[in-house]
Amino acid sequence: MQPRIVEVRQGILKKNDLLARGLRERFEAAGVTVVNLVSSPGAGKTALLEETLRRLQPRHRVAALVGDLATDNDAKRLGRSGAPVRQITTGTVCHLDAEMLSTALADWDLAALDFLFIENVGNLVCPASYDLGERLRAVLLSVTEGEDKPLKYPTIFNGADLALITKIDLAEAVGFDRAEALKNLREVRPGLEVIEASSRTGAGMEVWLGRLGAMAERTAQSPA
Amino acid sequence: MQPRIVEVRQGILKKNDLLARGLRERFEAAGVTVVNLVSSPGAGKTALLEETLRRLQPRHRVAALVGDLATDNDAKRLGRSGAPVRQITTGTVCHLDAEMLSTALADWDLAALDFLFIENVGNLVCPASYDLGERLRAVLLSVTEGEDKPLKYPTIFNGADLALITKIDLAEAVGFDRAEALKNLREVRPGLEVIEASSRTGAGMEVWLGRLGAMAERTAQSPA
Repeated sequence: MQPRIVEVRQGILKKNDLLARGLRERFEAAGVTVVNLVSSPGAGKTALLEETLRRLQPRHRVAALVGDLATDNDAKRLGRSGAPVRQITTGTVCHLDAEMLSTALADWDLAALDFLFIENVGNLVCPASYDLGERLRAVLLSVTEGEDKPLKYPTIFNGADLALITKIDLAEAVGFDRAEALKNLREVRPGLEVIEASSRTGAGMEVWLGRLGAMAERTAQSPA
Repeated sequence: MQPRIVEVRQGILKKNDLLARGLRERFEAAGVTVVNLVSSPGAGKTALLEETLRRLQPRHRVAALVGDLATDNDAKRLGRSGAPVRQITTGTVCHLDAEMLSTALADWDLAALDFLFIENVGNLVCPASYDLGERLRAVLLSVTEGEDKPLKYPTIFNGADLALITKIDLAEAVGFDRAEALKNLREVRPGLEVIEASSRTGAGMEVWLGRLGAMAERTAQSPA
């Protein structure tokens, strides 16, 4: 049975890559900067996004898509920012894929947006394999999870463009070893850009927003 | 393509259930109590297991199997207890299955053990669907992850026999809402047994060990 499983999986991934390519072209043509947030459950994706939407909104047009197996709690939370937010519930599927995104975005006017944030399903394994056509894939690692996670889930950290170390306000309480975490992140992905932040205290948020802002400027300047 | 994927997945699960039934019979015949620990990455499975092995060893014969995508860090950590520990590395697979367990246990004398602990891959989705022949499936929910996780990952909480709320020494620092977490756990699984513990301070560990001890007694008394 093993060869057949592999064959089907390759079929799924190939189809996803084709759809993702189409999404990427659509995002570029619309001039929208798309950011895919991935992490384990509870690493703080929603809290980061709440704070990001709130701080970006005065100067930028923002929206979000949120993936979860069940509930629309996160869409409700993020919707309070006033930004357009849509929930994708995946049932038993442990990641978002390009087809789910295409369906959710079918009736959206992307040209009316500067930023679209995708909050993936909380999972350090499955989302690694699914390109969503995003411009930036950011992986979150909270200080409460342990410094060893990059070594234990190398694929998702290796495939990310940027790592956000989150909940740094709790670093002392949990005995977080910052040097060890940085070493492990860069062992898996040499030269990986790392931002350390806390959605609760706001530490590091200006660095994160500066990074996003610079990316949007480049998107706006590039020929459509 | 969708029907074919479902067909293959059902084939995999059916095969797993048959192998798990064989494992369960083998565990019962050997009189070993098998506990499967599942949770998101960084919820504290390894720390709980370190402390559990240390406290059980004076009176019980214990061993552990540890699943991770990569590294044998956890096996090394747990091996310091002196207990037999074996690492299963799954590559890109987001759960342990009964076949991996059968292979890892092929040359073990299970009758020489009172307890076998399985530390599953850190994932709140995939391990839910794979019976490993265990006697008890315990799901960990750390106070740092957020009270909403049972609602967002209902399958794994619904399929567990017991929930362990971990890292309770951090409850105040993270503003953990205990009543909300208990409400959500029991909304997904009415009557679910819950133990609150901290591997760091030892709080709740005696309750957990008492629960394990009572289970081992029942195993020893049941006709083989």
